[in-house]
Amino acid sequence: MTQRVAIIGAGPCGLAQLHAFEEARKQGAETPELVCFEKQENWGGLWNYTWRTGLDAHGEPVHGSMYRYLWSNAPKELLEFADYSFDEHFGGPLPSFPPREVLFDYIIGRARKNQVERFIKFGTVVRWVEYDNTRQCFQVTIEALDTGASRTETFDRVIVGTGHFSIPNVPEFPGFERFPGRILHSHDFRDAREFCGKRILVMGSSYSAEDIALQCRKYGSGPITITYRTQPMNFDWPEGIEEVPLLTHMDGSTAHFRDGSTRGIDAIILCTGYQHSFPFMAEDLKLTTHNRLYPDNLYKGVFWMDNPDVMYLGMQDQYYTFTLFDAEAWLARDYILGRYQLPTRAERQEDLDAWRTREEALGSAFEDIDFQADHLADLVRLTDYPAFDIDLTRSIFKEWEHHKDEDVVTYRDRHGFTSPVTGTQSLPHHTGWWHALDDSMETYIGNNESHSQSA
Amino acid sequence: MTQRVAIIGAGPCGLAQLHAFEEARKQGAETPELVCFEKQENWGGLWNYTWRTGLDAHGEPVHGSMYRYLWSNAPKELLEFADYSFDEHFGGPLPSFPPREVLFDYIIGRARKNQVERFIKFGTVVRWVEYDNTRQCFQVTIEALDTGASRTETFDRVIVGTGHFSIPNVPEFPGFERFPGRILHSHDFRDAREFCGKRILVMGSSYSAEDIALQCRKYGSGPITITYRTQPMNFDWPEGIEEVPLLTHMDGSTAHFRDGSTRGIDAIILCTGYQHSFPFMAEDLKLTTHNRLYPDNLYKGVFWMDNPDVMYLGMQDQYYTFTLFDAEAWLARDYILGRYQLPTRAERQEDLDAWRTREEALGSAFEDIDFQADHLADLVRLTDYPAFDIDLTRSIFKEWEHHKDEDVVTYRDRHGFTSPVTGTQSLPHHTGWWHALDDSMETYIGNNESHSQSA
Repeated sequence: MTQRVAIIGAGPCGLAQLHAFEEARKQGAETPELVCFEKQENWGGLWNYTWRTGLDAHGEPVHGSMYRYLWSNAPKELLEFADYSFDEHFGGPLPSFPPREVLFDYIIGRARKNQVERFIKFGTVVRWVEYDNTRQCFQVTIEALDTGASRTETFDRVIVGTGHFSIPNVPEFPGFERFPGRILHSHDFRDAREFCGKRILVMGSSYSAEDIALQCRKYGSGPITITYRTQPMNFDWPEGIEEVPLLTHMDGSTAHFRDGSTRGIDAIILCTGYQHSFPFMAEDLKLTTHNRLYPDNLYKGVFWMDNPDVMYLGMQDQYYTFTLFDAEAWLARDYILGRYQLPTRAERQEDLDAWRTREEALGSAFEDIDFQADHLADLVRLTDYPAFDIDLTRSIFKEWEHHKDEDVVTYRDRHGFTSPVTGTQSLPHHTGWWHALDDSMETYIGNNESHSQSA
Repeated sequence: MTQRVAIIGAGPCGLAQLHAFEEARKQGAETPELVCFEKQENWGGLWNYTWRTGLDAHGEPVHGSMYRYLWSNAPKELLEFADYSFDEHFGGPLPSFPPREVLFDYIIGRARKNQVERFIKFGTVVRWVEYDNTRQCFQVTIEALDTGASRTETFDRVIVGTGHFSIPNVPEFPGFERFPGRILHSHDFRDAREFCGKRILVMGSSYSAEDIALQCRKYGSGPITITYRTQPMNFDWPEGIEEVPLLTHMDGSTAHFRDGSTRGIDAIILCTGYQHSFPFMAEDLKLTTHNRLYPDNLYKGVFWMDNPDVMYLGMQDQYYTFTLFDAEAWLARDYILGRYQLPTRAERQEDLDAWRTREEALGSAFEDIDFQADHLADLVRLTDYPAFDIDLTRSIFKEWEHHKDEDVVTYRDRHGFTSPVTGTQSLPHHTGWWHALDDSMETYIGNNESHSQSA
């Protein structure tokens, strides 16, 4: 009987998995029956922007955490699919830091090329996954959101690609219950212009805090106070942004901080990260981890230790994104196709332990980058995922870190990054990021085309 | 073997159910094993205010839809427990329109009296309920939110008391995706002061639209435009609030309406109602209905037609609330205790059809009130729920409707309503609602006590 594989989520990970199988099928492999369940009405996962917050039209948690005017915060060369270059999709060179809509278009372009939409059940949510030890298969209970119809189907493998930037981690501080303004998590942040003229407290010290603080100021907010738990980001912030130690409490609209200082605040934006949350997975199959480079219980970052017929994609803290998802999806595919043999449980544990021991000793961003590049290379060597210049990406990551340290406002204006896939050099953007208020693909591509034509 | 009864939710309905069983037990009945699953860390359901919106600390949809400064919008005499009067709880007369905190205290007071917290598993979410035809019992899969531990337990009966004012119904209009301000559903509305000075579009024509429009204006918002789909509420609004036909689209921050008019808007509040949503119920057990006085497939408004061992509490559109929940819970209890015999399926269907035929013919709010009062009386006569003056409540409801029509700003300042339980007359409040900015129980009770002492 044909194997049945359930893929949960049609974002970058789920689409990578479908694409991986299609690539094998086109080369003659006999592929299993694939069913990809996607609760949204569209594909692209996080990259599918929505104005909605909280719960969606069907009462399900909104998956999207993207906001308007979000531009890539790393050079696009670092996430370029090895088998589908930016040149192939866009027909020529572009700048390195495209807005969301452009990257969404790119992701979808590859999915369209292999017509993987035929495997996807949109508007379908997975309610429960458990393993039937007697029948040695998975029971997957799903619901069609438009009708409420539910059923339980049997699968031989389950691949979880639901991401980990959708379920917010929302801390509580004394006085929140009486604060007279809006308190939101970055997950619900949609449009910086809402905060025009407002005095904002941003809590956090990672990418969201950095980018949302800059966005708000760029689009006309009042002064921004960033509060950090352990250490500040210490960028050379533009005027109107400052970092202070952790909030102790709110007293009405007055924020009190550990250094004894206070600020009047109109809105609080909690950039306090996300939870790895899999409410649909039975306990014995459920990944439990914080956001780290090598989560526990996943061999090669993919195979669930106790039952490798459950695979997780993209569950790492991420420098690498699309290429890492691809490499993981290729390996999951090859395991399912019988091309890749898993070692014994003891050997898997030993491998996992070695990676995690190394991870525990990491001491800098550069070491983190090298660690994840090594993880990626470790996966790529196991499959036929096309070769690309991983060492070049290490250098670009490190260069990018320097650029951010030099100027957090202008690092997105850098260009001349080399594609690790095609060798193409990225163009300068027609407008500096701080002044580029229109983030539409039309403006971005259109003007760059005329730019490149006139250059 | 002792019967096992699962009660889902520890809000007013679940607490009524636990209380009903305790009342029987205190009178010598042998009661089943009761397990009440509550995903929140506290009881009281909707009445348990939270500053959180969207997803809670565990990534579950926030249950609460209450906001700061919410005062009862109907006289408290209309929701008084027949076996636990306001006089008993507060020790004397009060005004008729208390703020949320006061009603929360009252609900919890009765729950504490019978110590029903011992039946409640807090922080525990029900993931899936299905009926096992072979074993003739329910399989209920639950998860402890703090640990992620999940298990499946067997129950003989399942009582659903999760409410239907938690999962928002959120329509989309053209231009929402590019509107540069906040768009929220009333479910996520928390503090009117956030909208101080803002031009607000409120969408809706029911209680939430009315109350949130008034709240915002009371706490200093800019002009409020209420847009309705079919007909306006037509109250004599205070200055700065107006009703217009339905929104057609947003163009940036400009709202366009069917009458051709436009308004500049800073925030959009969708008071567009809620969905009956039971994502944890298998399809054959799941109530599907819009908000109406007599939903289909529920005999007496309680028993699931195809399997009366599933009971739903409080699923009606509600004039009556706590007393209706009580009457339903008492009947569910008596069915489970074997005191109440269900008629045959054909008889149940006939009864349901008769109620629904009558419901379909209702033509006014007064007819609605009489219909639901009759429904309540129909339930009360079947159990030993204490007698109270239902006919008096009909009159109060109609009087209240008149008061609202006379002045939507001052109807909460009325007093002298008679308790249908004790005959006590309600006091005047010390401050008119429009001027009462502090909604704390301390201010409300404290000042009323001194008021009554000095009177």
